[in-house]
Amino acid sequence: MTAPSQQDWQTLALKKRSTLSSQIPPEWLLPTTLLSTLTPTSTKSLLSVPSTSGILTAREIDLTENHDATSLVAMMLKKVATSYEVTLAFCKRAAIAQQCVACLTEFFPTEALTRAKECDEYLEREGMGMGELHGLPISVKDSFNIKGIQSTIGYVSFLSHPPASSNSVLIDILLAAGAVFYCKTSLPQTMMTTDSHNNIFGRTLNPHNPSLTAGGSTGGEGALLAMRGSVLGLATDVAGSNRIPALCCGIKSFKPTSRRVPFKGKTPPGRLGSPTSILPVIGPQGRSVRDFEMWMKTVMTSEPWRYDEGVLDVPWRVVEPAQRPLKFGLVRGCAKRPLHPTVKRVLHTTCKALEKEGHQIVPLDGKIPDIWDCAVLAFKYFLLDPKKTPVQHVLASGEPWIPSMAKSFPEELKGWEASLDGLWDMNVERARVLSAWHDAFVENDLNAVIMPGYQSIAVPHDTYGVPAYTVLQNLIDYPAGILPFLNANQELDTPYVDKDAAYEPPYTPKAVEGAPGAVQIMGRPMKDEELVEIMKVVESVLERAT
Amino acid sequence: MTAPSQQDWQTLALKKRSTLSSQIPPEWLLPTTLLSTLTPTSTKSLLSVPSTSGILTAREIDLTENHDATSLVAMMLKKVATSYEVTLAFCKRAAIAQQCVACLTEFFPTEALTRAKECDEYLEREGMGMGELHGLPISVKDSFNIKGIQSTIGYVSFLSHPPASSNSVLIDILLAAGAVFYCKTSLPQTMMTTDSHNNIFGRTLNPHNPSLTAGGSTGGEGALLAMRGSVLGLATDVAGSNRIPALCCGIKSFKPTSRRVPFKGKTPPGRLGSPTSILPVIGPQGRSVRDFEMWMKTVMTSEPWRYDEGVLDVPWRVVEPAQRPLKFGLVRGCAKRPLHPTVKRVLHTTCKALEKEGHQIVPLDGKIPDIWDCAVLAFKYFLLDPKKTPVQHVLASGEPWIPSMAKSFPEELKGWEASLDGLWDMNVERARVLSAWHDAFVENDLNAVIMPGYQSIAVPHDTYGVPAYTVLQNLIDYPAGILPFLNANQELDTPYVDKDAAYEPPYTPKAVEGAPGAVQIMGRPMKDEELVEIMKVVESVLERAT
Repeated sequence: MTAPSQQDWQTLALKKRSTLSSQIPPEWLLPTTLLSTLTPTSTKSLLSVPSTSGILTAREIDLTENHDATSLVAMMLKKVATSYEVTLAFCKRAAIAQQCVACLTEFFPTEALTRAKECDEYLEREGMGMGELHGLPISVKDSFNIKGIQSTIGYVSFLSHPPASSNSVLIDILLAAGAVFYCKTSLPQTMMTTDSHNNIFGRTLNPHNPSLTAGGSTGGEGALLAMRGSVLGLATDVAGSNRIPALCCGIKSFKPTSRRVPFKGKTPPGRLGSPTSILPVIGPQGRSVRDFEMWMKTVMTSEPWRYDEGVLDVPWRVVEPAQRPLKFGLVRGCAKRPLHPTVKRVLHTTCKALEKEGHQIVPLDGKIPDIWDCAVLAFKYFLLDPKKTPVQHVLASGEPWIPSMAKSFPEELKGWEASLDGLWDMNVERARVLSAWHDAFVENDLNAVIMPGYQSIAVPHDTYGVPAYTVLQNLIDYPAGILPFLNANQELDTPYVDKDAAYEPPYTPKAVEGAPGAVQIMGRPMKDEELVEIMKVVESVLERAT
Repeated sequence: MTAPSQQDWQTLALKKRSTLSSQIPPEWLLPTTLLSTLTPTSTKSLLSVPSTSGILTAREIDLTENHDATSLVAMMLKKVATSYEVTLAFCKRAAIAQQCVACLTEFFPTEALTRAKECDEYLEREGMGMGELHGLPISVKDSFNIKGIQSTIGYVSFLSHPPASSNSVLIDILLAAGAVFYCKTSLPQTMMTTDSHNNIFGRTLNPHNPSLTAGGSTGGEGALLAMRGSVLGLATDVAGSNRIPALCCGIKSFKPTSRRVPFKGKTPPGRLGSPTSILPVIGPQGRSVRDFEMWMKTVMTSEPWRYDEGVLDVPWRVVEPAQRPLKFGLVRGCAKRPLHPTVKRVLHTTCKALEKEGHQIVPLDGKIPDIWDCAVLAFKYFLLDPKKTPVQHVLASGEPWIPSMAKSFPEELKGWEASLDGLWDMNVERARVLSAWHDAFVENDLNAVIMPGYQSIAVPHDTYGVPAYTVLQNLIDYPAGILPFLNANQELDTPYVDKDAAYEPPYTPKAVEGAPGAVQIMGRPMKDEELVEIMKVVESVLERAT
């Protein structure tokens, strides 16, 4: 087999993009005058494009904008909405989102509408819904396998793969619960960088400001959800891939403890069999914490251990609403990645709002291992494959590296080579980090920790770098979620500027003006149920403080 | 530092043995006429020595012989026995056992009796017991740390270590529950072979027949429990160390799923930080399954996650008594290690007894991966340390290797060297094994699996070899337990002889006559509670069939 020429990969990629475009019916296409303004250097918010495009009816605008998944399922069960009309509304809006921000990899509205109709008919016929997610359209990251649909995950070399011959375990579970699938969403080349950019589908833009990153690796979801082209999306997370797009795009997300949600049957970006102690995790992105609860409960009461031997047979527990007052640890950043002014203001305002409602904040300065050191350790685990399989997947097609890969690993690891002997020492170091975080929780009697999800809000393309504040939760396997709060505002942020701070990436207030802020909330391992309840409390506190 | 000479290690070991001997009060010493007959070539059962020694009172014989731990705790709470007299009885009997079978490494009756008195006084004063294990003497493997007591774990080089400065997490938990510690028990050099033999404390003998192995690595416990010098013991298990001594010594044992019982704060025989996916597990050895339930419940309702970040915060569940009829898979051996006639008869009789009471048996022939291949894979994980730390620990003192080490790893791995690249492939192979066992359970709707714990019953010293039938449960992290059943009986076993079988180790009916048989019962991961209930059912079926 000869290596394909550079021409080849471009032709292949173009062909795939054309196929994707052809899935959008002509009546859902935006005017070319508008499309021509959509570039990665434009700064204009695209959030209002769908509702002003004339493509959606008033009803469809309402269905896609004013409800969370819990509400939509209730409406369908009460027959005040059909799955068909809800699915059609989200299909239209996803098509518009795709034209605006290049968030999709696969789009199959015809199959989705057929399925939605089946859900409606089931409800008519049986007098009950198909399941806890009856008729609900759900968007999924491209790495999930859906039978009959390709999973190229952004590698040009994977364009030769046939469509998936079976569903990921989680897809089967959600189908059994009544879900409707209608699209798959874009992600970065290798899935190990934070700009959702690849040589097949291009670069996903941030709907709030197309000159900023949408985050990654589940950035297609993040952008689609921000455009309200989806109400609930499936993300994965091994270094923050579920949470980074959420904090960049102003949506919510939840990363559970590992081994609770079935991961089996996905298309991996690297080599199977990693001896890493960092396990990838699936979690939802969406609009409300109660949606995450509905989703987790649905998945975890479906006996997922039956279908995936990697799942711990520990069913979802019904827990009491979070006890008040709550006690939160607070992480105020680390020396190597000081917090940008907007993030400082968001954290400060969050803590004030929580304290105002009687909750307690305990700064963890000096009580926890250095965040950056933990990130360097974590990224060593991502470099354990001597065969460098993701590199092989890229080289196989002749496609070039995407620019953001240059910054995706810590500088300290340039030239670093994994060894079996060194892996023992890494594990000892990881045990030390685990122990320190465990002790911080126990000794301070914490319910959860409030911290940044990143040192900045969404940054210009290809500058995000190492996601130190999110990879921590993967290194120690603690559940965590993102809640959006406030927006960059140069005037309000100025008092938070530290003139001596070496901001990395640079703080560029004009470039990020108006972009959404966010906080990260981290809970205890296996206590996903409790974290959901705590996030509900924070969610409502932040709503009142907005 | 110069390496100590061979003389040195012998002197050091002798000194430690003398210290241990000096802990036995003169009035608990057996007559030298009896002691002189106790050799590793003698075949005479020693089980009746304690009761006929004249050292124990009739009351002490009753306390040590006729009750399980549950019963003893109840008697102490009802004040029909004191912790002092129970502890004294077990101390006396442990001293006798030590003289017969060399099962101890540390013996501290004075401290134990002081503690027992405190328990009695607490009960008097408070009108309630100290905890769920109020006043109960518990014996522990030498690798557990007890403050003020040394943990040499059979390495001569560890004789220079100071006494432990703190307790293992589990020791603290059991103390809080009212336990009394009085001795630590012997184990093999490196803990990675099945003869509990080391150059400090010598060789632990099998009380049923001193010419046979007591098993290992928790063989001191096994022998002590068989001598009724303990009612409940703490074992560890990474390849069968909890279960092998049980099946050799005719006692019961239970190995839970990993990460439920706190492992933190023990003295490790090798290097910390192993990238193995096989985690060591602590479990009890003893007399009754209800004791194991009491013990597990006590440990797991003590919030062990607070004290050990390695513990999953998944509390013990109260489950219904096992549903009847139960469905058991049956493993009938593997080609490379065919079952000895006694084991075949024990398995056959077990299945008949279960079927007679309405339970169902499903042979798993052809449905599961080869047991021996799994063992070879598992042992690769035990060879991942490029520094070969256990070897260094042995060489450090100049002590020789114990003979059984020669057979402790599969022949196939002679010269095998671990590599980081190979570890990825090992993990893929392990995933395949996990998946196959998972499917065998799910597709056959099994409650548990009945299988041998070893291809033979206890064998002559230094011939046990690779524990293929027990390391499987560590490789796949399924809980399992041992129940003793029947005894070797050449006449009854003869029909089970397969003339074409290449028995390894050899089948030597005369050498093993009368030695105890056993079955292994394996449950589902994280369903330790269910396995305990299932083991109770099997326990009572086997009692009725005996």
